[in-house]
Amino acid sequence: MYPKNAWYVACTPDEIAEKPLGRQICGEKIVFYRGAEGQVVALEDFCPHRGAPLSLGYVENGNLICGYHGLEMGCEGKTVSMPGQRVRGFPGIRAFAAVERYGFIWVWTGDQALADPATIHHLEWAENPDWAYGGGLFHINCDYRLMIDNLMDLTHETYVHTSSIGQKEIDEAPPVTKVEGDEVITSRHMENIMAPPFWRMALRGNGLADDVPVDRWQICRFNPPSHVMIEVGVAHAGHGGYEAPAEVKAASIVVDFITPESETSIWYFWGMARSFKPEDQALTDSIREGQGKIFSEDLEMLERQQRNLLWQPERQLLKLNIDAGGVQSRRIIDRLLAEEQALAAQKIDVRQVG
Amino acid sequence: MYPKNAWYVACTPDEIAEKPLGRQICGEKIVFYRGAEGQVVALEDFCPHRGAPLSLGYVENGNLICGYHGLEMGCEGKTVSMPGQRVRGFPGIRAFAAVERYGFIWVWTGDQALADPATIHHLEWAENPDWAYGGGLFHINCDYRLMIDNLMDLTHETYVHTSSIGQKEIDEAPPVTKVEGDEVITSRHMENIMAPPFWRMALRGNGLADDVPVDRWQICRFNPPSHVMIEVGVAHAGHGGYEAPAEVKAASIVVDFITPESETSIWYFWGMARSFKPEDQALTDSIREGQGKIFSEDLEMLERQQRNLLWQPERQLLKLNIDAGGVQSRRIIDRLLAEEQALAAQKIDVRQVG
Amino acid sequence: MYPKNAWYVACTPDEIAEKPLGRQICGEKIVFYRGAEGQVVALEDFCPHRGAPLSLGYVENGNLICGYHGLEMGCEGKTVSMPGQRVRGFPGIRAFAAVERYGFIWVWTGDQALADPATIHHLEWAENPDWAYGGGLFHINCDYRLMIDNLMDLTHETYVHTSSIGQKEIDEAPPVTKVEGDEVITSRHMENIMAPPFWRMALRGNGLADDVPVDRWQICRFNPPSHVMIEVGVAHAGHGGYEAPAEVKAASIVVDFITPESETSIWYFWGMARSFKPEDQALTDSIREGQGKIFSEDLEMLERQQRNLLWQPERQLLKLNIDAGGVQSRRIIDRLLAEEQALAAQKIDVRQVG
Repeated sequence: MYPKNAWYVACTPDEIAEKPLGRQICGEKIVFYRGAEGQVVALEDFCPHRGAPLSLGYVENGNLICGYHGLEMGCEGKTVSMPGQRVRGFPGIRAFAAVERYGFIWVWTGDQALADPATIHHLEWAENPDWAYGGGLFHINCDYRLMIDNLMDLTHETYVHTSSIGQKEIDEAPPVTKVEGDEVITSRHMENIMAPPFWRMALRGNGLADDVPVDRWQICRFNPPSHVMIEVGVAHAGHGGYEAPAEVKAASIVVDFITPESETSIWYFWGMARSFKPEDQALTDSIREGQGKIFSEDLEMLERQQRNLLWQPERQLLKLNIDAGGVQSRRIIDRLLAEEQALAAQKIDVRQVG
Repeated sequence: MYPKNAWYVACTPDEIAEKPLGRQICGEKIVFYRGAEGQVVALEDFCPHRGAPLSLGYVENGNLICGYHGLEMGCEGKTVSMPGQRVRGFPGIRAFAAVERYGFIWVWTGDQALADPATIHHLEWAENPDWAYGGGLFHINCDYRLMIDNLMDLTHETYVHTSSIGQKEIDEAPPVTKVEGDEVITSRHMENIMAPPFWRMALRGNGLADDVPVDRWQICRFNPPSHVMIEVGVAHAGHGGYEAPAEVKAASIVVDFITPESETSIWYFWGMARSFKPEDQALTDSIREGQGKIFSEDLEMLERQQRNLLWQPERQLLKLNIDAGGVQSRRIIDRLLAEEQALAAQKIDVRQVG
Repeated sequence: MYPKNAWYVACTPDEIAEKPLGRQICGEKIVFYRGAEGQVVALEDFCPHRGAPLSLGYVENGNLICGYHGLEMGCEGKTVSMPGQRVRGFPGIRAFAAVERYGFIWVWTGDQALADPATIHHLEWAENPDWAYGGGLFHINCDYRLMIDNLMDLTHETYVHTSSIGQKEIDEAPPVTKVEGDEVITSRHMENIMAPPFWRMALRGNGLADDVPVDRWQICRFNPPSHVMIEVGVAHAGHGGYEAPAEVKAASIVVDFITPESETSIWYFWGMARSFKPEDQALTDSIREGQGKIFSEDLEMLERQQRNLLWQPERQLLKLNIDAGGVQSRRIIDRLLAEEQALAAQKIDVRQVG
């Protein structure tokens, strides 16, 4: 169960640069490509002629040509032409609202009448030249909520990411979780500790000493449907930690867009945005490589946790203080799902009355 | 759903030259091998002793020895002997009518009382020394009818086989479909065009100029249960096209035997028979290689079309003029299926009355 | 269907030497590791916190640390501690009785109140220094009873293991099967024959002539739930065969522990125990290598037999004299299963009355 009336990250621009991209999102098979004005188009990946996937075709003059028999599909899901055919009576296919913004392509898989690009969360780091961003994409066989849990409870760093960002002090600093509207925030502050390897690298990358005590922070922000932004960083100890001036700290935002493919699989867009040395592409690359290695350590755990939960579907899991971030996030998701169902039921009622 | 009271190509002689072959056809697991007189034998691939697949065994004196405990199975599906056992009371296994003809091994998986080798379609090219044949076998995960559709509508060549046999003029020449008894014929003629790469190679192979305009034709013939023979060729333009004399044309028959393995998978026997330079084995080989590459281009399209149709089983597909060949073929198949079911119901009635 | 109130071989000590081992046995996902005193511990492989597999964690001071968020699990399935948490109210996980004995780790997956290590079958060869043992482990996709059938009817050696231990004379010597309590014994004796390749190797390994006639024996012993020990050997002919003195024979015990993973898959622990030249490690290694090759010849047969039986689940198989060993073994298993079900029903009754 995932909200469908929501903006999800579907892909990145490079994935549709060469040819159309077929990708399943929230149970819908969708083809993504660029239309005549360069705008992103998202259509059901199903040719109305014989059901071939349109994503195996090619783009010509901004329309998608089916790679099987040449049907020309327009950006609205209406057939434009087909060699030797009158196409006026052809059934349409669904078009999905799609928006390119912040370096990602966003799609709305639910009720298209409700799709409003203004509701895409603002991402300051994606527009401000003082920031640099690097990231990647993983396909993982788990419920998207297991990944939300993972990111809203960073105690797992101590165990899963022992050699990079994990350290015993994370465990020892109890997290504080609060809910503000549809946002869930879990914060953790560690003071006067030694930085773990990844953060020593970041300190050096920012021209700072890496062998002195630091204050470290992690502020995880969940926003529906399934975005988790995590402010993370270290500052030389005693300068205010999170509030310390830029010249004594290395700080960044861990960016996580979790897009359900099916009930038990996700497209996981991960990355890191930083506000130090944004022009340093080599640093961007080395951070991306390091983060990719670290984040890949979660895959086996998440996939095997998923298999365990399928094996024991009745089992009640614990909801500890460290789980509060995930628990509150699921509460918001559950409310959105209920609202979505109520809205759908209402629509059916209206139709029946009408 | 596939007719079972029909002759299907099961395999080629080379596949049973060394040892028995186990292959599933129309949902039946069957073992093929040669009996004492060299005749082809087809039996249920299931040892009556403990259910082992007989195809893991070996042939001795024309009988099949089970590779597990040595049961000796006769050509009629009756156990002949077993070390240390009296076998008279052993249950039989099913024997399937099998015939070697035209360079293929044919099997009848339905009601064995109805199996009449005389009803195997005559294949002139397979017996006449003026013709040469080369071909291959693909396993494809799709309903056999999707392959029939594919072959009865060659507009797909323009899109799937762009660099070899496709050309825009195919699209522009409307096909004509007619039904003659159980045969469906879809024809397309293109006049005064330039030949695409594959046909230029064929023209050169036949000692003809390849840089002059040609007339091109495609005459697709469906015969039940699922054979499609396609007369294809080019002639130097203005000599009568299909009717042109042999010395100005390169013509051949595309041979397609589509054998269901299951509801959503097939054994696809493809090949080409030609009546020019039949003695030229190198030409046969290069045509086979070229055809193999071209036909492999259909695989991904067919398998992903199949997955799309399983995803949206309710969806109605279009039936355009270019689809008439497939649509008419399916109509014949549906009639045969209905006849087969009526016959089976009748048999049950007779038994109950008796 | 497999008995659960039974001791099964779960793994060998080397499999838990480095880190915990996760293995599914009789449908239960179990983690195996060594506790503080070096004793073997077997727990449900499911962290009570969020369902992560404990087998991805590590052992510290004899307790298992969950590799996700650091929960510390004790040997009884009760949480000992968790960073920053009070764990007293945490739900327990199941603990399985586990015993290390005879070079194997045994587990009881059924009613834990009934687990009595004294009921593990005595294995003389595993404790007596006059014997040496070597073996291995295969994962096979078949019902565990198909492997019992396989081992209780060695006529298959003639066909499956033609080049090593098979010989025509096996077929010709009718087996004798008897049941003694819960033990099924199938014996076969062949006199004055030439030894097949494996046994010639063994004769030479024991310093005996390999080119003279021998007497050969096979005495298969099934014990529930699914252990098959086979006394096998050859003696120079005319010295009493099985009863011949040690200096004219090469004899050993084929060891087979068949542990169900699921209804249609097993962990198959195979090996050979011998009482000649027990100190000769090179001989142990070459026998293990030879046996591994021979036993791997059964895999394809068993897996394809299983698929055949799933394809034709209604089909009655034959029960010949050579099958008596397997048939009688299944009879004992069926009785144990019925007893197990009766016991479970009785427990439920008691609870309801109470």
